[in-house]
Amino acid sequence: MSDLTLTTYDWVPEMPRGFVRDIRVRWALEEAGLPYRVESTPFRDRGPDHFAHQPFGQTPWLTDGDLSVFESGAILLHLGELSDKLMPADRRGRNDVKEWLFASLASVEAASQPWSFFKFSGDTDETQMRKFFDGFLEARLKHMEIVMAGREWLVGDFTIADILMADVLRLVDRFDGLADYPACRSYVARATARPAFMKAHADQMAHFAAADAAA
Amino acid sequence: MSDLTLTTYDWVPEMPRGFVRDIRVRWALEEAGLPYRVESTPFRDRGPDHFAHQPFGQTPWLTDGDLSVFESGAILLHLGELSDKLMPADRRGRNDVKEWLFASLASVEAASQPWSFFKFSGDTDETQMRKFFDGFLEARLKHMEIVMAGREWLVGDFTIADILMADVLRLVDRFDGLADYPACRSYVARATARPAFMKAHADQMAHFAAADAAA
Repeated sequence: MSDLTLTTYDWVPEMPRGFVRDIRVRWALEEAGLPYRVESTPFRDRGPDHFAHQPFGQTPWLTDGDLSVFESGAILLHLGELSDKLMPADRRGRNDVKEWLFASLASVEAASQPWSFFKFSGDTDETQMRKFFDGFLEARLKHMEIVMAGREWLVGDFTIADILMADVLRLVDRFDGLADYPACRSYVARATARPAFMKAHADQMAHFAAADAAA
Repeated sequence: MSDLTLTTYDWVPEMPRGFVRDIRVRWALEEAGLPYRVESTPFRDRGPDHFAHQPFGQTPWLTDGDLSVFESGAILLHLGELSDKLMPADRRGRNDVKEWLFASLASVEAASQPWSFFKFSGDTDETQMRKFFDGFLEARLKHMEIVMAGREWLVGDFTIADILMADVLRLVDRFDGLADYPACRSYVARATARPAFMKAHADQMAHFAAADAAA
């Protein structure tokens, strides 16, 4: 029996709300139907206890009894090993899930994150480096478009790999970066229409709204 | 019994030699003492067989019998499950290895890669975005410095997490980005002094040099 507690910030600014990475963990927990609690850690004053759980001072982290796990990819893998609703049982399926978990981060988010920083900054200068990062993301999306054109989900009937990839692509979509990639865009729409995502998103928004109300 | 074949490019330009990601896989295989073959795939003409193994047209990938694995993180995790020289047996140790595998990529390389692109480009303009990416990497290194100041290896006596983290930091060190982070720098020096790293590095250099000789 697992004893799961998700820890996220007590508050964040408006801009990232709905996109804080605890949503990946909430979403997986909701898909699996696993019971869990949510606790808060200060956004502004990050103390030794925070760094003991997450050495970069980020969130989320998950505790499962006496085990503490940080990094959304590692948390998803931990949950995938707890529930057959999140990861298939066969060797090939489990391998596919693991490669797509890593690919979501190291191949797609590695390109989408710098691109999104340019978008967040409001900087519109057409510098050489900006063009480079635009091209870096386009190269990855072009391949993801081919992958998604041929399937509904990355692996089987939906897994933690889809949670991670769809969440990464959702931030690209927020800045209209999927306009030329209809298969990726409909993948994001399909993923975010799932009741477990909608519950996770509403819960994250409510969590930070409650902090405003308490302030 | 595993039947392992690593596939990498047949050739790459001078600049990335010694830093192509197949080194992560070679290094792990050498640490574990697992037998393996190395095969080449064209750098210039990437065909359907390449994309069937690696949907982004990158390398490396590893086949283990009829299973094909892409993404260096996923390959290292696969090898970690094959050898107790690469990952501890206990639950907490395995959890630590997985979180640091993801952290190497999603927390450190996500910051070091954009920074290194600026370095590779030779662009020295002090733009707002360049300063942002410099600061992004510094924030992550500052925390890694605290982590490494207190230990020899990330987990136990050396694991796949150290292979990945040390390889990520090695590219920062190449551009002298660890000058203010002595614990990170000595960690890289310690990791790259291991016989398995030296063999992996020499083998990668020889592999690409052989392509030059054949051209």
